[in-house]
Amino acid sequence: MTFTISDRLKNVSGSAIREIFELLKSGDIISFAGGMPSAQTLPAKEIDDILNGIVSRYGAIECLQYESTFGKARLMQSLKPFLAEYKNLSAENENMIVLSGAQQCIDFACKTFVNKGDVVLVQNPTYLSVLQIVATYEGKCVGVNSSEDGLDIKDLEEKMRKHKPKLLYAVPTFSNPSSGEYTLQNRKAIAELTARHGVMVLEDDPYSEIRFEGEKLPPLKSFDTAGNIIYVASFSKIISPSLRVAVAVCDPAIIAKFNISKQSTDVCSSSLSQLIVSEFLQGDALKKHLANIIPAYRKKRDKMAECIKQHMPASFKCNAARGGMFLWGEFPDGRDLMPDFRKLIDKKVAFLPGTHFFAGGEGKNTMRLNFSNASPEQIEQGVRVMGEHFR
Amino acid sequence: MTFTISDRLKNVSGSAIREIFELLKSGDIISFAGGMPSAQTLPAKEIDDILNGIVSRYGAIECLQYESTFGKARLMQSLKPFLAEYKNLSAENENMIVLSGAQQCIDFACKTFVNKGDVVLVQNPTYLSVLQIVATYEGKCVGVNSSEDGLDIKDLEEKMRKHKPKLLYAVPTFSNPSSGEYTLQNRKAIAELTARHGVMVLEDDPYSEIRFEGEKLPPLKSFDTAGNIIYVASFSKIISPSLRVAVAVCDPAIIAKFNISKQSTDVCSSSLSQLIVSEFLQGDALKKHLANIIPAYRKKRDKMAECIKQHMPASFKCNAARGGMFLWGEFPDGRDLMPDFRKLIDKKVAFLPGTHFFAGGEGKNTMRLNFSNASPEQIEQGVRVMGEHFR
Repeated sequence: MTFTISDRLKNVSGSAIREIFELLKSGDIISFAGGMPSAQTLPAKEIDDILNGIVSRYGAIECLQYESTFGKARLMQSLKPFLAEYKNLSAENENMIVLSGAQQCIDFACKTFVNKGDVVLVQNPTYLSVLQIVATYEGKCVGVNSSEDGLDIKDLEEKMRKHKPKLLYAVPTFSNPSSGEYTLQNRKAIAELTARHGVMVLEDDPYSEIRFEGEKLPPLKSFDTAGNIIYVASFSKIISPSLRVAVAVCDPAIIAKFNISKQSTDVCSSSLSQLIVSEFLQGDALKKHLANIIPAYRKKRDKMAECIKQHMPASFKCNAARGGMFLWGEFPDGRDLMPDFRKLIDKKVAFLPGTHFFAGGEGKNTMRLNFSNASPEQIEQGVRVMGEHFR
Repeated sequence: MTFTISDRLKNVSGSAIREIFELLKSGDIISFAGGMPSAQTLPAKEIDDILNGIVSRYGAIECLQYESTFGKARLMQSLKPFLAEYKNLSAENENMIVLSGAQQCIDFACKTFVNKGDVVLVQNPTYLSVLQIVATYEGKCVGVNSSEDGLDIKDLEEKMRKHKPKLLYAVPTFSNPSSGEYTLQNRKAIAELTARHGVMVLEDDPYSEIRFEGEKLPPLKSFDTAGNIIYVASFSKIISPSLRVAVAVCDPAIIAKFNISKQSTDVCSSSLSQLIVSEFLQGDALKKHLANIIPAYRKKRDKMAECIKQHMPASFKCNAARGGMFLWGEFPDGRDLMPDFRKLIDKKVAFLPGTHFFAGGEGKNTMRLNFSNASPEQIEQGVRVMGEHFR
């Protein structure tokens, strides 16, 4: 039978990054392509300890029965001090919903606000899955110019006037892919401008705890006076991606819509995952874990930066990455790195061509390099091979 | 700020059943309203045993890292013999995707096939969440007449001709809410007719292992010659709802679309949940667990049927429920049970008014009674209070 696929899905292709992941699973490729924590720094012992006797400790209903769609009461209780201490945010139950990863928040935000043909503004470059998600709602992504220090406010305002966007998607702290950090002033300006134009903002914050240097900045959400900012914190990068736990913080009217979306997609999030996160937050496990992973990732960042300096052509420019998991590089000429990507796969090294992160497919001369997952030896070896290829 | 909600969500209200759940969480109400396994029969010890040392046993990558969007290889390996033995289905990896509960399969099927204004045919009465999910895609549910023995084939064909539906949603074995069971002949007729008319079918099968009597029947999917049937098996009712694990079996072209939907909504399902299901399926845990819950639920069904005979008015007719978790009853007159629902909540007993399960809001004189979750004493007490109210 020929399948008549819906308009929203018929022209959407798979995520480049997920397909590259599938490709990289086989073989001995050194991968700088993903965005994964390193296997060595995943909290294996801590999670085994939490899981030991967990059902008899909490009881079958708490661990194994259907859970509230909004999220487990126990987790929400632990999230409040976490949000206050780590994120400068105060939230009540009515402002929170537990989601199956921050990706689900992007999906729900688009589901709630984007009609066919509506524009979603994104930083250029942006997290590549956003481009795919907006496409599944038949929306259109338009890129806003940006620098290391944040969005170009003039360009943002012009594009808000021109496109009447429903949503701005932003990762203000250690953006994926470019690891920039919006300045305090830039954050305030974005909050003020989007409120004035009545544009919803989705602030995605998976990386801000992975800071190597510099002072912590308050999130956009802390400057929200109009209720237009949806904030989402994820535990994928700071505890474990496989738990699929994130929390959205926003106006109760939006929480109500997210709740309907959750009822009609996956009913509730895994209770066991929610309990693991809750225990991590109640004790000092998160603090200890961050004290473990931050120096490890900083060391890998330094190693990669040093190897790039040593092996890559001098024309290749790379950012500093004061936090997060990525270096973002570019060649000054307009070369297209896609053929190099394929050739380097044959040489057993993978980077991610930066063009996938641009709303309009530009940035063909850019690349994202993940430093959190590879070992220092793999970083040395992989960057040397890249250097030999590009020199 | 006034929020401009998308067309697809602005008129969708929350699920009646989820809101009733929230209502029932507080207080000492005897609830026949939900569709939950009983706390006593959830496999607490078995899951504690599986979780004991699970991360050191499988390793951090297998338990805590991002997983393939299609599902964990180890689980897919265990699913094949499960599907063969329990479901009469043979499936290869290319035919399977692991989902976060069967609800996610309903969502993805609508996402993949339903455009605005498209019709989805459902059994009348049907699982109430389907009505909500179709609404989020701006589709329209049309009910097909049904009896204990399945769909009215003549009505099905007429409605296929009239509405050119994109999808038929069906629960052929122990339908929720009415616990009927499509006959073998009915299954064959549905498969043949939908293939001929080019209508996709979503066959939802969460209850078929909870059989109290009668011979197992093969699923619709086993009669699929055109590739138009999507089959989904859930582990929510037979292991634990909180795991959020289900598996869809269908044509690889549809799997590819489901994979894109999963990438853009929750990336992958929880690894720990997938490993729990996998271990349950590898050993004899599922077999033992079913041998435990089936007699327990049968006893509760018998108890409830007996109490209804004793306490409820003779005019109240109830089905037999050869499996599943529900009795489905109706009063012969055209009374509206919603006011009775509210009055009985005040008397600390909850049933679910059947009207929520009808595409057109009919069935006001019907009710669904869950027997799996309450204790025999609660069943006795609750039905007596209902009887006093209705006599």
